[in-house]
Amino acid sequence: MATDVVPSEKLVSIDRVHAARDVAGELGLDLLVFTPGSDLRYLCGYSAHAMERLTALVVPARGEPFLVVPRLEAPMVDASPAGALGLSVQAWDETDDAFSVLAGEVSQRLGRTPSRVAVGNRTWAEHALGVQRALPGSALELAAPVVDRLRMVKNAAEVEELAAAGAAIDRVHARMAGILRVGRTEAEVGADIAAAILEEGHIGVDFTIVGSGPNGASPHHDVSARVIEAGDVVVVDIGGETATGYRSDCTRTYAVGQAPGPDVAEWYGVLQEAQAAATAAVRPGVTAEEIDAVARRVITDGGYGEYFIHRTGHGIGLDTHEAPYIVEGNDLPLVAGMAFSVEPGIYLPGRCGARIEDIVVCTEDGVQNLNGGPRELVVLPG
Amino acid sequence: MATDVVPSEKLVSIDRVHAARDVAGELGLDLLVFTPGSDLRYLCGYSAHAMERLTALVVPARGEPFLVVPRLEAPMVDASPAGALGLSVQAWDETDDAFSVLAGEVSQRLGRTPSRVAVGNRTWAEHALGVQRALPGSALELAAPVVDRLRMVKNAAEVEELAAAGAAIDRVHARMAGILRVGRTEAEVGADIAAAILEEGHIGVDFTIVGSGPNGASPHHDVSARVIEAGDVVVVDIGGETATGYRSDCTRTYAVGQAPGPDVAEWYGVLQEAQAAATAAVRPGVTAEEIDAVARRVITDGGYGEYFIHRTGHGIGLDTHEAPYIVEGNDLPLVAGMAFSVEPGIYLPGRCGARIEDIVVCTEDGVQNLNGGPRELVVLPG
Repeated sequence: MATDVVPSEKLVSIDRVHAARDVAGELGLDLLVFTPGSDLRYLCGYSAHAMERLTALVVPARGEPFLVVPRLEAPMVDASPAGALGLSVQAWDETDDAFSVLAGEVSQRLGRTPSRVAVGNRTWAEHALGVQRALPGSALELAAPVVDRLRMVKNAAEVEELAAAGAAIDRVHARMAGILRVGRTEAEVGADIAAAILEEGHIGVDFTIVGSGPNGASPHHDVSARVIEAGDVVVVDIGGETATGYRSDCTRTYAVGQAPGPDVAEWYGVLQEAQAAATAAVRPGVTAEEIDAVARRVITDGGYGEYFIHRTGHGIGLDTHEAPYIVEGNDLPLVAGMAFSVEPGIYLPGRCGARIEDIVVCTEDGVQNLNGGPRELVVLPG
Repeated sequence: MATDVVPSEKLVSIDRVHAARDVAGELGLDLLVFTPGSDLRYLCGYSAHAMERLTALVVPARGEPFLVVPRLEAPMVDASPAGALGLSVQAWDETDDAFSVLAGEVSQRLGRTPSRVAVGNRTWAEHALGVQRALPGSALELAAPVVDRLRMVKNAAEVEELAAAGAAIDRVHARMAGILRVGRTEAEVGADIAAAILEEGHIGVDFTIVGSGPNGASPHHDVSARVIEAGDVVVVDIGGETATGYRSDCTRTYAVGQAPGPDVAEWYGVLQEAQAAATAAVRPGVTAEEIDAVARRVITDGGYGEYFIHRTGHGIGLDTHEAPYIVEGNDLPLVAGMAFSVEPGIYLPGRCGARIEDIVVCTEDGVQNLNGGPRELVVLPG
């Protein structure tokens, strides 16, 4: 299992690159290529800006891994945590064909052209197809089977980072009475939440969903010019990025100005029960889809199954959404260290919606919840 | 030429989707697929969040184009400018195979499986390979030959947006005397610049490069803990995103606290002459590489050719970097409406660097500069 191949308890370690190489070998892959994004950052600590010029961590099944970077960015590798890992750097000049540089180095290390080439799932098509073109006879596939195995299981340092991100977003929710007020637009509320996300310890804002009244029935609604009214039920789903790249993501649903009617209390109660039951079901050996099924069963039994229109959760780490996905059809057994959201919702079209979302970590003997604060429908003064 | 197929002068128009289909047909492509990002936004006005769930604009060579979206995001399409274009929407449910949904619709419209499938250059590998797998026998290529032809040539509405972005970033540079001070760190300066970028009319900060002293010799340096010293030469390259998605990007180089020595003035003068000459050379019919050559010739003749280590510029629009690239080897003739940076630099390793960057638009009879402010080495009080 993944825990066997990620021995380091640090956030950046050459061990991760070597572990990726080991898993690639095990899976019969000849080459791994990762461009800027969370895979690259996870594996070697280089947080590069994604752009048209090729930057890549290249991991042949044999021989030393290396970085390909535009010469004008070579100083930035040294200045990053990747600079301490001892990776060799192949810098290419502005009028070089960067893909040829990459292919030449790979063929030299392998002694032949690779057949099975895996690229990061979020590598841009222009880079993926550029690599393939430079390695005639190679076939492209995705590197998820390699990197998911590593990234899904967080080490203690990563859990600490996620816990800090969770505490930071909890502090934003704790300020909601001062932000989410009757008479303000969702956009105004969202802007204040964004400022609070930065003030409370993130370096970037990922999303600020403020779904008031009928907008709450659209799970991925952003913000709008709709003015918050007394009696509105409001879904607030917010998250950001911390300095180390780890993410927060927490949803609470509020009632503004007055308690909602008993009908809302009834189905909100079902939702809260579903979220608690799914969280309590988390432990090693249970599959991802079983967690989804637990939440879905409570909501279906309560009579609202048709209004729960999305999966129960997603993994989280350097990306807000990553493996493991908590969805029907995913029979992956949970292991200690997996971090993901538990976020069932009920959405009543034209009326309103509600969602409750925590980030949890599977532990050796159960579950650790990285978010706090009440999961009840909190009534704000308005 | 591209101007023939983009008749609309608006920012969002179904004409663009139809123009893409026409160009695809002309190039013998059977299918175009665009996932969230600037291509999607350009073509149909839908500014979707990139994520693992498939969202795509699908343009078969025959039959009506359509959108594939997760059902939980279908309301967001209607709420976006794309909602007014009359595109049909194929919503997929959380446990559907979205790629099969896409493939089924395509085969129905074409009456067969497509052979040549082009995906957006920045489409994630997981989506590009997912599309290919669902269309057995198809071969993937990049959609740049289609979309670059459209996107490279800005219409009047787009030039207005770029001009507004340029004016906004000029106002940030105009405030530099209050921000770039002796005793502050690059990171502090960068944070204040980021705030000013938002205050002056952007909705997002793309980058804040503050390269002081020796850090200025690294063209893509970001910010660091280095403290600005009296006499420092500082490269400030900044840009952001406006509400319509268009970008700003402008570099000025400053001296802080005291005028630099005559040696700096000498090579800075060469750089300024190169930037002015390259800008003045812009007109229809001149090739992109000729603009690069003009800047390079002045710097080489001045004796600093080895210190100008990057291309002269890049196109700009909904992406900060897009076609046309102003680089040796690009023999594309400029046409009226092309917008790009002119940004030569001189970088003296271990010492300092300088760059001067304006965004310009090729016009029917020459060039329009979208940035103002002095290109001289401005000496700030410190």
